[in-house]
Amino acid sequence: MLAVFGHTNPDTDAITSALVYARLLSRQGVEARAYRLGELNFETPFVLREAGVEAPELLTELAAGSQVALIDHNESAQSVPNLSELTVTRVVDHHKLGDLTTSQPPSLRFEPVGCTATILLKLHREAGVPVERTDARLMLSAILSDTLHFRSPTTTPDDREAVAFLAPIAEVADVEAYALAMFAAKSDLGDTPADTLLRMDYKVFPFGDPAQPQTLQQWGIGVIETTNPGYVLGRKAELLAAMDRVRAEDGLNGVLLSVVDILNETNKTLVLSATEEKVLREAFGAEPQDSLADLGGRISRKKQLVPTLEAYFAPRT
Amino acid sequence: MLAVFGHTNPDTDAITSALVYARLLSRQGVEARAYRLGELNFETPFVLREAGVEAPELLTELAAGSQVALIDHNESAQSVPNLSELTVTRVVDHHKLGDLTTSQPPSLRFEPVGCTATILLKLHREAGVPVERTDARLMLSAILSDTLHFRSPTTTPDDREAVAFLAPIAEVADVEAYALAMFAAKSDLGDTPADTLLRMDYKVFPFGDPAQPQTLQQWGIGVIETTNPGYVLGRKAELLAAMDRVRAEDGLNGVLLSVVDILNETNKTLVLSATEEKVLREAFGAEPQDSLADLGGRISRKKQLVPTLEAYFAPRT
Repeated sequence: MLAVFGHTNPDTDAITSALVYARLLSRQGVEARAYRLGELNFETPFVLREAGVEAPELLTELAAGSQVALIDHNESAQSVPNLSELTVTRVVDHHKLGDLTTSQPPSLRFEPVGCTATILLKLHREAGVPVERTDARLMLSAILSDTLHFRSPTTTPDDREAVAFLAPIAEVADVEAYALAMFAAKSDLGDTPADTLLRMDYKVFPFGDPAQPQTLQQWGIGVIETTNPGYVLGRKAELLAAMDRVRAEDGLNGVLLSVVDILNETNKTLVLSATEEKVLREAFGAEPQDSLADLGGRISRKKQLVPTLEAYFAPRT
Repeated sequence: MLAVFGHTNPDTDAITSALVYARLLSRQGVEARAYRLGELNFETPFVLREAGVEAPELLTELAAGSQVALIDHNESAQSVPNLSELTVTRVVDHHKLGDLTTSQPPSLRFEPVGCTATILLKLHREAGVPVERTDARLMLSAILSDTLHFRSPTTTPDDREAVAFLAPIAEVADVEAYALAMFAAKSDLGDTPADTLLRMDYKVFPFGDPAQPQTLQQWGIGVIETTNPGYVLGRKAELLAAMDRVRAEDGLNGVLLSVVDILNETNKTLVLSATEEKVLREAFGAEPQDSLADLGGRISRKKQLVPTLEAYFAPRT
């Protein structure tokens, strides 16, 4: 049985693409089962309810040597703790290639598109497997979520085509209205504790050159995409305290939390300490004030934050 | 302009798949050009002549930041010396995933099939790009070469299907006769110097755990696939002397040279010193005599030699 899962702190793509890929493999004769590596965010339950499916089971432990398929991630820092003991036979992803290695030839399908689900739709079409309503709804939702309904600079023509193809099968007549309902669900944060908010869409990235250990840095970068940034920024003090705890717990060099205004496509990033302030000034030319840095239209962690930080922390030769 | 190339010490797949992929990309609107990273072996000129195409140009240098596509390899030890300075945007490969990383999301297409060309045929068919005679001939030849016309344990049903699909387009009526002619060309080694024979199909593999530098080993493994093993084994003394030079030049922990009898599907491996002898005894249960170890039917470096060595050199925990 192949265990299929997305990254820790799962977003909608990490959950729905694990479900869709496991189902596709099963239909192709490969025994596969979807799992999740953490609690759902506020958007995903809305999506699962609309699609009429249950959340995948939480993965607690996998025996060494188990066969796994990674979805929407490939770096060990974003996966199960004992990834190096597992046998990765398949990966479907749209991120940069990190520290993954395999001991046997794997099936890898990476494309520089906005969402894993866009690649999954291609896999269905290439294999001549008809897309059913539930899967169409899950893939459509993932693409709208990852691309912020085409607002993100990660959006590609393939993502737009995929949505156009999926919407009628998914029986979503008004895609913009559906996307706004998703974003509203995501923004309905209620009295969620600050630690949970920070960890909801949070990834740890290694920077520097592994061959020069003295250059290595580990940064945690959280993103809160919301239609109601005022609410989140109103809890700045609590969130900064949570960032301070996470930095100590995870042994990080720095922590950033970007509050992304989905509808206005802007990013205001919380600045924990002088370390983060220096990096935001030097890498992004930002001018932090009152523990807040205006990063303008840089709303994509993957395409706009991480590459800049990677270049900033790269050893000068 | 995207530079497309296969591994150093190129075999037929590394050369022909670079040509075919560069042409496919060009037909899809991506400016691309095929290169080679070394001299042709004795089989490839036969294949190129039959297909009526020139060998790709030798790649001498690429400026830092150049965009490249890797074909039939992904490990830095088998690629251009300055790979870490280049931007890898695409990889098509059927080997295990090694030390490759990228700073942007790449296009990766890895499948555990017998030959890169088998994947390239899928790319044509998925994109609805008709396969032309020349490309069909190149892909067919690469698959027959890599799988030793289905004799190798690396062969998959996809490789067989690809050959069945390609043969009529390539206008190869008798596939077995064509494969034997290829193998005969490959085996016509004439008075090639022993150093050249050793390096013709030769790859360097890192073993051990990068996180535990004291466990790291670098081994060079050459393979000579031939229909005339007696000729090669008759030059054992010269070849052992060449192996000794390569071990010193490349700073290796060990060197192996497997002489694979294509038609009888057997492997006799030259044993340089007590280091190699110990490993062959302990990892493969072989009983080397007179600097020669009978490895029986283990004719695939990728599927039968390297995984065993990897397990042997893995740190015990």
